[in-house]
Amino acid sequence: HHPGGFVALVGGGPGDPGLLTSRGRRLLAEADVVVIDRLAPRTVLAELAPDVEVIDVGKMPDHHPIPQEEINEILIDRAKEGKIVVRLKGGDPYVFGRGGEELIACRKAGIDVEVVPGVTSAIAVAASAGIPVTHRGVANGFSVVTGHAEVRDLPHDRAHTVILLMGVTRLRDAAAQLIHSGHDTAT
Amino acid sequence: HHPGGFVALVGGGPGDPGLLTSRGRRLLAEADVVVIDRLAPRTVLAELAPDVEVIDVGKMPDHHPIPQEEINEILIDRAKEGKIVVRLKGGDPYVFGRGGEELIACRKAGIDVEVVPGVTSAIAVAASAGIPVTHRGVANGFSVVTGHAEVRDLPHDRAHTVILLMGVTRLRDAAAQLIHSGHDTAT
Repeated sequence: HHPGGFVALVGGGPGDPGLLTSRGRRLLAEADVVVIDRLAPRTVLAELAPDVEVIDVGKMPDHHPIPQEEINEILIDRAKEGKIVVRLKGGDPYVFGRGGEELIACRKAGIDVEVVPGVTSAIAVAASAGIPVTHRGVANGFSVVTGHAEVRDLPHDRAHTVILLMGVTRLRDAAAQLIHSGHDTAT
Repeated sequence: HHPGGFVALVGGGPGDPGLLTSRGRRLLAEADVVVIDRLAPRTVLAELAPDVEVIDVGKMPDHHPIPQEEINEILIDRAKEGKIVVRLKGGDPYVFGRGGEELIACRKAGIDVEVVPGVTSAIAVAASAGIPVTHRGVANGFSVVTGHAEVRDLPHDRAHTVILLMGVTRLRDAAAQLIHSGHDTAT
């Protein structure tokens, strides 16, 4: 239906352009349109050909985020014009990236989609702070959640790493929950 | 102490060489020695210069794995010779990759270490099967564990994805545990 047009949902990794995948970089080099998030690795934009259309959906003049439905429409409309559309996200498209919603919207519109996983900040940021999310005898698994309610329901009595994303504003509640669940206050 | 010598713990991603990071690929191009795991992306070996020493610690003639202490020694000895040593792992070095242990051993021996995160199979394999580990209204978080005991202690009453790695031999126990905890048998 749309010769040549498709959408690639590309995980851009935690920010360092060196942590973008080869496949992600190749797709950026072939892109006609790049739709970029606030948390995607922005330095790679400098490498794009000058005629590539860059749509920044993470930075509005009024500081309001663009509704997801509008982003979906942008992806679908450009792909229908036969364009290669790279949707560049921070981290991995499927870790709180709403990649699943974009995939479904594009598929419903008859658009081909390629999903390119990325390095998730959930693991890489801990690593850059010197913390392995698993470590023999210390952590036999890990959980990635966003809210303090989820923190409550995770295992507290065993070697398990809890990664709280986007948790700064709820950090006090999360810490209280962890202490209430029996964690050492020094955790 | 060891001019030029260091160890890079590189996450090779889930297998597709396109999912290796730029930084990982650059380190491979500079490496004097590559110490490779069974589950690391092996096709990238073909791109190495012919004088690069490749040490395969995942494939022994007697099918026994090389003890971790021996791997640590290989990394340390080569780095002390002033060599750039890339320890290429499957997935991410810190997701059940024993990267933390190798980091500690190298640091104790006075060797500089760089850790390069990778795309973890825990998320990417689900993605390639069409399953986002998080999805609005379906899964607000996820846990990565290896054993059926850990499965028992994870939240069962909420939207949460459970990823069981290296679980084939214990799949029956894990499934029984999930059903016992109230999951639909069709899960």
